[in-house]
Amino acid sequence: MKMLKDPEHQVAGHMAKDGRLGPLVDGEGRFFKPFQSNGRGENEAKFYESFSSNKNVPDHIRGYFPVYHGTQVVEASNGSGKLPHIVLDDVVYGYSNPSGMDVKIGSRTWYPGVSEQYFNQCLKNDRETTSVSLGFRHAGFKIFDHQESRFWIVEYKVVHGYKVDDATLVLRKFVSSNSLADSIPDCAFASEVYGGSNGILAQLLELKAWFETQTLYHFSSCSVYMFYENESILMKGGGGARAQVKLVDFTHVLDGNGVVDHNFLGGLSSFIKFIQDILES
Amino acid sequence: MKMLKDPEHQVAGHMAKDGRLGPLVDGEGRFFKPFQSNGRGENEAKFYESFSSNKNVPDHIRGYFPVYHGTQVVEASNGSGKLPHIVLDDVVYGYSNPSGMDVKIGSRTWYPGVSEQYFNQCLKNDRETTSVSLGFRHAGFKIFDHQESRFWIVEYKVVHGYKVDDATLVLRKFVSSNSLADSIPDCAFASEVYGGSNGILAQLLELKAWFETQTLYHFSSCSVYMFYENESILMKGGGGARAQVKLVDFTHVLDGNGVVDHNFLGGLSSFIKFIQDILES
Repeated sequence: MKMLKDPEHQVAGHMAKDGRLGPLVDGEGRFFKPFQSNGRGENEAKFYESFSSNKNVPDHIRGYFPVYHGTQVVEASNGSGKLPHIVLDDVVYGYSNPSGMDVKIGSRTWYPGVSEQYFNQCLKNDRETTSVSLGFRHAGFKIFDHQESRFWIVEYKVVHGYKVDDATLVLRKFVSSNSLADSIPDCAFASEVYGGSNGILAQLLELKAWFETQTLYHFSSCSVYMFYENESILMKGGGGARAQVKLVDFTHVLDGNGVVDHNFLGGLSSFIKFIQDILES
Repeated sequence: MKMLKDPEHQVAGHMAKDGRLGPLVDGEGRFFKPFQSNGRGENEAKFYESFSSNKNVPDHIRGYFPVYHGTQVVEASNGSGKLPHIVLDDVVYGYSNPSGMDVKIGSRTWYPGVSEQYFNQCLKNDRETTSVSLGFRHAGFKIFDHQESRFWIVEYKVVHGYKVDDATLVLRKFVSSNSLADSIPDCAFASEVYGGSNGILAQLLELKAWFETQTLYHFSSCSVYMFYENESILMKGGGGARAQVKLVDFTHVLDGNGVVDHNFLGGLSSFIKFIQDILES
């Protein structure tokens, strides 16, 4: 195996930084996510095992999830020794300048059966962020600023403090060519990234259609990760924006027990409406 | 005006009983709902005023709301004197033996900005009932038992204690011809009531399509009230089941502020899935 290294394009929490444990990539298309603490890593591996062998998941839906390659014990990113990792396809492998955005879907991150401590912590976060009002909240992003020719990354603490206006504005900045310091994003790439038959909106709608009937899983605290290639825009042509949606973060997935995941579906529908509004404006 | 009297077909809370204040009907098609306490009556009247004059509400959606005829001060049902009432179309006027069911939609009945006391009370009710797990909870029903030739009504306290299995079973009992004491409902009227191009499912789907784009209102603590005529089933023919869906209870409607009502939409989608499952089984 090639030497593992820090990923260039990670956008949300759990980044390897200042000695903290973070994910790794092998530079050949695989992504190594260290098991998260308190059993969350085991839960996530269990979900990937279940999902990857579940014959009730349609093939076109499977494409919205990172491909799972089991678990593997490798040297951790922070040098703290060998630790178990979930091995996945590196979804941005082959992208040279991807902008990416991680959006946690649902107005509620707690669920029946959790400890009162976890319940209170989730409820507090849901109320303090845009989760309750919008049905989703930003968890992180990395947007290429075409004016400054560098990536714009906002600290997790700042993103966590986003109000409704910040949260919706950044969905416009994500597809804009003017300086991200400008308060009025031009949404120059909206139709290329969000629109079209293979764009973000079309993918989100396909996912939504599945969520309207699927009762296999409830995706608590799960994120929509959307990303696209800036290089083709910079080069005027090339392979196109290759905009993609993936679901990520499955540390709190539960059995659906015959019930639609109304928390995820509601939040996803709200998110979709904002993308539609950007395309229409 | 004709003498006002207690309605025969009321299903949910706020019934006039044991001296409690309840709604009245005039027997000519009008329904008088007394203002609820703590400003809720004023809120509801304010919503009806706004909604009935709102040109952005499509006509086919307006039909899912009781027609509003202003407010009027009339003698209260419990003899406590003259009180303000909201005057609406009596939606079951002209039905002789309607079965009706009131389902409060949404996994959350609190919303940003409420007092901590109201927040805690709502959260407790949401967790104790099926609201969190199913995205809806029963508020009351009145189902005609074709074996016993009488209505089956369950006390509010009992309905409030319904678990997931009770909540989904009663959706089957609502359209069954065998004794409601039987544990296996036959769903004999499912296709006539839930199915068809004018049935409950078709109406719920039309409402859902509106909720996917409407950002005018957020319908907190609002109910889907569905009802149908048993007489035509008893008489083998006649006018048909005349199954209808109305939204009711608008004491906690808020401005949508450009955001989809993801709480209502998620719950409605979950409810719809159960109706679809009954039709398919």
